[in-house]
Amino acid sequence: MRVVVTGGSGFIGSNLTDALLARGDEVVVVDNFSTGRREFLAGAVEQPGFTLVEHDLVEGGDQLEAAIDGSDAVVHLAANADVRFGWDDTRRDLGQNVVATLNVLDAMEATGVERILFSSTGSVYGECDVVPTPETAPFPVQTSLYGASKVAAEAYLGAWAEVGRISATVFRFVSILGPRYTHGHVIDFVAQLTKDPNELRVLGDGTQQKSYLDVSDCVAALTARVSEQPSFEVFNLGVDDRCTVADSIRWITGRMGLRPDVIFGGGDRGWVGDNPLIHLDTTRICSTGWVPVHGIREAVERTVDYLIENQWVLDGHQARR
Amino acid sequence: MRVVVTGGSGFIGSNLTDALLARGDEVVVVDNFSTGRREFLAGAVEQPGFTLVEHDLVEGGDQLEAAIDGSDAVVHLAANADVRFGWDDTRRDLGQNVVATLNVLDAMEATGVERILFSSTGSVYGECDVVPTPETAPFPVQTSLYGASKVAAEAYLGAWAEVGRISATVFRFVSILGPRYTHGHVIDFVAQLTKDPNELRVLGDGTQQKSYLDVSDCVAALTARVSEQPSFEVFNLGVDDRCTVADSIRWITGRMGLRPDVIFGGGDRGWVGDNPLIHLDTTRICSTGWVPVHGIREAVERTVDYLIENQWVLDGHQARR
Repeated sequence: MRVVVTGGSGFIGSNLTDALLARGDEVVVVDNFSTGRREFLAGAVEQPGFTLVEHDLVEGGDQLEAAIDGSDAVVHLAANADVRFGWDDTRRDLGQNVVATLNVLDAMEATGVERILFSSTGSVYGECDVVPTPETAPFPVQTSLYGASKVAAEAYLGAWAEVGRISATVFRFVSILGPRYTHGHVIDFVAQLTKDPNELRVLGDGTQQKSYLDVSDCVAALTARVSEQPSFEVFNLGVDDRCTVADSIRWITGRMGLRPDVIFGGGDRGWVGDNPLIHLDTTRICSTGWVPVHGIREAVERTVDYLIENQWVLDGHQARR
Repeated sequence: MRVVVTGGSGFIGSNLTDALLARGDEVVVVDNFSTGRREFLAGAVEQPGFTLVEHDLVEGGDQLEAAIDGSDAVVHLAANADVRFGWDDTRRDLGQNVVATLNVLDAMEATGVERILFSSTGSVYGECDVVPTPETAPFPVQTSLYGASKVAAEAYLGAWAEVGRISATVFRFVSILGPRYTHGHVIDFVAQLTKDPNELRVLGDGTQQKSYLDVSDCVAALTARVSEQPSFEVFNLGVDDRCTVADSIRWITGRMGLRPDVIFGGGDRGWVGDNPLIHLDTTRICSTGWVPVHGIREAVERTVDYLIENQWVLDGHQARR
């Protein structure tokens, strides 16, 4: 089949692209390279079934329609994925996550492509009282512009599916780790420790509890659902487990063979809008036969290994405090 | 206090404006008169505490900031309220309901106004299995672009409140009826019967169950909450009762003294995306001391009386089939 992967030069997108090509699918990557890396597509560009379209989804229009035309499915991963700095520009998430999604839907409508898979986030649950949190959790209150924009995009996908215009699968991801990871606390910590192995500064008090999933397991769930034809379905995607930030620090420093002084910034949240407890109930996705191969600790350690072996990713990383 | 009412020339907005002026508040109406009626502000413009700002909220900017500056609260009612025809222009709800709300929030931020009350809708629950539907209903799937846009706006309000930028109250309205009602099935039916008293054509099979609230009760809830300072709160607003479309037809024709042939279009929904069962759980708003004065039947009959006494509203109404 022919699959469009928006954000295909990013962390998850490039892993998905490689997996789809490996099983014989054609892949059209649509990306503006705002945060993606050309290096991640180095293998893909050698494949005959691969096409790259440089395009900013916020623009939409003819170029996007041409990219999508003739495909069997769109995996829409392109997004502003920065939860923490949403307040730097209060319209960024609206444009990159909502308007971009509506542009994809319009282009699908124009070209007769009906199947879409969408990367949402566990952040949409806000600070839910029900943990592990199922897809049917109570109507949430958002705690970030990122979460708000993903809820909005999910809502539009639901409405489009309701009237029969699309077949949509929404995945609510926990934080994804693993090879090509470029964004989040593990790279922040590894970058800090690479610069100064004796000290690690950490936002919050280390008690925040998070759940992580290895990108290979994430990609396996996406590839398994791409040829399904539901009207509308939502899956949490994570491991049925959680760890504290302090656990994660122990695993990272252990893997690096370091024993730095760890200086906590304090407070039960890393930043305003940080969610102190994320643990998704994955019963629904597991009922489809999907099981994660990697546990949380393994996902963290595979990420550390990748970053150490790929110094250029660390070099390109600018930690923001 | 000084209250900005966006959409203040509309059905609910003009009733709210009159109520606020009557209790001695200053009122600034911001409206672009796209669907509002100048006639509804005929009384308000005579009051010394009243200011009218003609402005399209989709534009935002300096004019909106000037209108909001110095106020104690914004009651943001302006919206595209057409659920049924959202697909005529798939971006209309995004602009008028989401971007307009973000423009209001930006203007509040710029002028230091923190309090906002927002008109959302029971449509955000989609086709919820839990009836009567409480505010904590399961994470919904949207069935209309209108619902999607209201969910999106609610989500942004939640995120803004979470970071302490605003104090927000979200009201999820059932359909509102009563004096100055200009949009929905009661005016469609009365207009049809005024033209031809012998025949009434109805979408769906008459079994759809809906809940209605009289605008005076709606306004009472808004005025009661406007000076509160919660971080973020959500209230369903309706009566704890429902009726079928067939009931409503009986009350309307009875009030008009007519016995027309009623021709049902068939199907359990009036249109694609119509919700066949709306009944909100109002326990939460009732716990604040608010109680609706008018029942559903009374709200329907008061609407019929108003329309018959105000032929000019009927004349301005264009039924869409």
